[in-house]
Amino acid sequence: MSLIVQKFGGSSVANAERVMNVASIVTDTYAKGNDVVVVVSAQGDTTDDLIEKANEINPKASKREKDMLLAAGEQISISLLAMAIEKLGYHAVSLLGWQAGFNTTSAHTSARIRKVEPDRIKKELDKKNIVIVAGFQGISKYGDITTLGRGGSDTSAVAIAAAMHADLCQIFTDVEGVYTADPRKVKNAKKLQEISYDEMLELATLGAQVLNNRSVEMAKKYNIELEVLSSMTKASGTIVKEKTKMEKMLISGVAKDTDVARISVMGVPNIPGLAFKMFSKLSAKDINVDIILQSIGHDGKKDISFTVAKNRGEEAVALMKEYTENLGAEEILYDDKVAKISIVGAGMESHAGVATKMFEALYDAQVNIQMISTSEIKVSVLIDSADADKAVSAIHSKFFD
Amino acid sequence: MSLIVQKFGGSSVANAERVMNVASIVTDTYAKGNDVVVVVSAQGDTTDDLIEKANEINPKASKREKDMLLAAGEQISISLLAMAIEKLGYHAVSLLGWQAGFNTTSAHTSARIRKVEPDRIKKELDKKNIVIVAGFQGISKYGDITTLGRGGSDTSAVAIAAAMHADLCQIFTDVEGVYTADPRKVKNAKKLQEISYDEMLELATLGAQVLNNRSVEMAKKYNIELEVLSSMTKASGTIVKEKTKMEKMLISGVAKDTDVARISVMGVPNIPGLAFKMFSKLSAKDINVDIILQSIGHDGKKDISFTVAKNRGEEAVALMKEYTENLGAEEILYDDKVAKISIVGAGMESHAGVATKMFEALYDAQVNIQMISTSEIKVSVLIDSADADKAVSAIHSKFFD
Repeated sequence: MSLIVQKFGGSSVANAERVMNVASIVTDTYAKGNDVVVVVSAQGDTTDDLIEKANEINPKASKREKDMLLAAGEQISISLLAMAIEKLGYHAVSLLGWQAGFNTTSAHTSARIRKVEPDRIKKELDKKNIVIVAGFQGISKYGDITTLGRGGSDTSAVAIAAAMHADLCQIFTDVEGVYTADPRKVKNAKKLQEISYDEMLELATLGAQVLNNRSVEMAKKYNIELEVLSSMTKASGTIVKEKTKMEKMLISGVAKDTDVARISVMGVPNIPGLAFKMFSKLSAKDINVDIILQSIGHDGKKDISFTVAKNRGEEAVALMKEYTENLGAEEILYDDKVAKISIVGAGMESHAGVATKMFEALYDAQVNIQMISTSEIKVSVLIDSADADKAVSAIHSKFFD
Repeated sequence: MSLIVQKFGGSSVANAERVMNVASIVTDTYAKGNDVVVVVSAQGDTTDDLIEKANEINPKASKREKDMLLAAGEQISISLLAMAIEKLGYHAVSLLGWQAGFNTTSAHTSARIRKVEPDRIKKELDKKNIVIVAGFQGISKYGDITTLGRGGSDTSAVAIAAAMHADLCQIFTDVEGVYTADPRKVKNAKKLQEISYDEMLELATLGAQVLNNRSVEMAKKYNIELEVLSSMTKASGTIVKEKTKMEKMLISGVAKDTDVARISVMGVPNIPGLAFKMFSKLSAKDINVDIILQSIGHDGKKDISFTVAKNRGEEAVALMKEYTENLGAEEILYDDKVAKISIVGAGMESHAGVATKMFEALYDAQVNIQMISTSEIKVSVLIDSADADKAVSAIHSKFFD
């Protein structure tokens, strides 16, 4: 008998019919003799509907109250799924984040899990119940409802799997697994049978959006085997684990991220520590900087460019104003019509020329590269967002056709 | 400085505009120097919408899961109201039933409050917060979410007022107070300035539906002064208290209840204890019997008639079947086209002839009386439901015009 954690996203439980479909997947797993803990997100557009309700009243509401509001979404979906499982003749019990033992920090709307205390979950499993847990939510040490931020349900699932030493954590989505590129955009995109945590992490960070990044980090840390698969088909998915046993492919995927903006501070005086101060300023406001490029400099001045998430762009520009106003920088350029295209692959480490092959593909497709960034297992380029899809196809063909 | 508990029903918070209206009532009260605890129901039709979602999936879902689902309704309304109060520049904090200390029995969907432990509420009031509490819900000793049943938010409000020794508990509804008859039906209906707990209790039981009965019982027990008033107008409402100081009116109101069915078991053998057994059978199934009428009997047989709530009628008839099948009763008559019309008034005790005056009004209006029941402060008659509105008007005119 195994303990299996299954996570279903909002689109998998969007209406009564889909909830019944999820119930049948869950009860099939249970009927095979497994203990099953299910983690569910809010139904379809519930979260967006609730946010709209809040914005109608007060767009600047406190984060504590936003969390209180949003947490109602999973409360609805977990109870409906429990009812659907009851309908199929099985025993189910739904648990809210706090009932399931999710202790989090008190950073409302983006809390982090401090500890999962699964006593109640264990008690219900001992009673032979299928346990349904509200994803995305927890409780702070002050006894307030918190949420983990978008995509947090993946993290909830992995955290339970870790706390309970589950044998497998299945993440059901609306795609059949992890692909070498977005299958809706690239016709020859291939489903991967296996991928390593590190490759998956790079892909998640790079906008592949199959799995929430924090969840993969946690799976890696606790060595939880993940399976990404579809709730709509019976096809097997992609296994995410430490070492993939399949023959190493050169790269495992091409990813596109359009949620990115480039900021360039031009003509910064070449004084030691200025770049450091610039980025501490951003990190103090929790603005994550991704690609950074610094020109070599001339005439005692240099240019510093970096990318941030689009929704933090304005704020970052405002913070940089000081450099033009007080420290003699010449001007600030801002561009949010950019896209980051990346290739990821553990095979890269041992194969030279991967980056060159990528640049060649872009050259062939007449795509201009604005910035380049590399790590051990990935190469990213920043390009004009209008070229993004063309670039992904060209790179994918170069490596996979 | 006073502590005031204010309760708002679902129609008072049905949309963004009404939520803002409630926020302005609450903050006005707070700005006058009072501590304010607000109890809110789910928005407008939320509860019905959630029940529909559940029925689509499993109409026979467990009561535990129904409670989990329904409790999401108040979670939405309390957070929205807190946001609205924040918008007006005040500090608010919303609390779920379990956070506000509502310990209940574990009778899901109709739990009773065992104890309110308002530590968290007190702490938030000390921080100068306006506290918004989810009505209708609590937590069982097993750590499960419970609900108090329809109308339970009134009870939640009075329970908090009792636990915190509040100076006043205001129940905001969509009417301006308690009237001598339904103002939508009877043109000369008058708003009462004051009414005693006992009169209010009789009116609530009798279908006036202004206040939930359990809440009035609790207010009487803990001597909490209630005010029933409208959230839509600034008019003062009706005060409900132990002793009314106004000149005693003969009667305080005429009420109609059409949620009633009559069952008659005809020709029951005249054996001691049979009536007792009959009614224990009904109470064992939690079926409340209201008016009971027993014929004097002849030929060793008698007829027993009683009324129950319409939705329990079928069940009650089934239970009575045994009397015709095994104990020799002749037949069972069932009629749910009946209405109970009642007059209520503390003044009745000291004035003879009140019942007579009521019967005279019915005679003048040519309404036939099927059953009669009296208590110290009320007289009820059962009549054909087609005559109900005519009867109320006739009686109201007789006493108030």
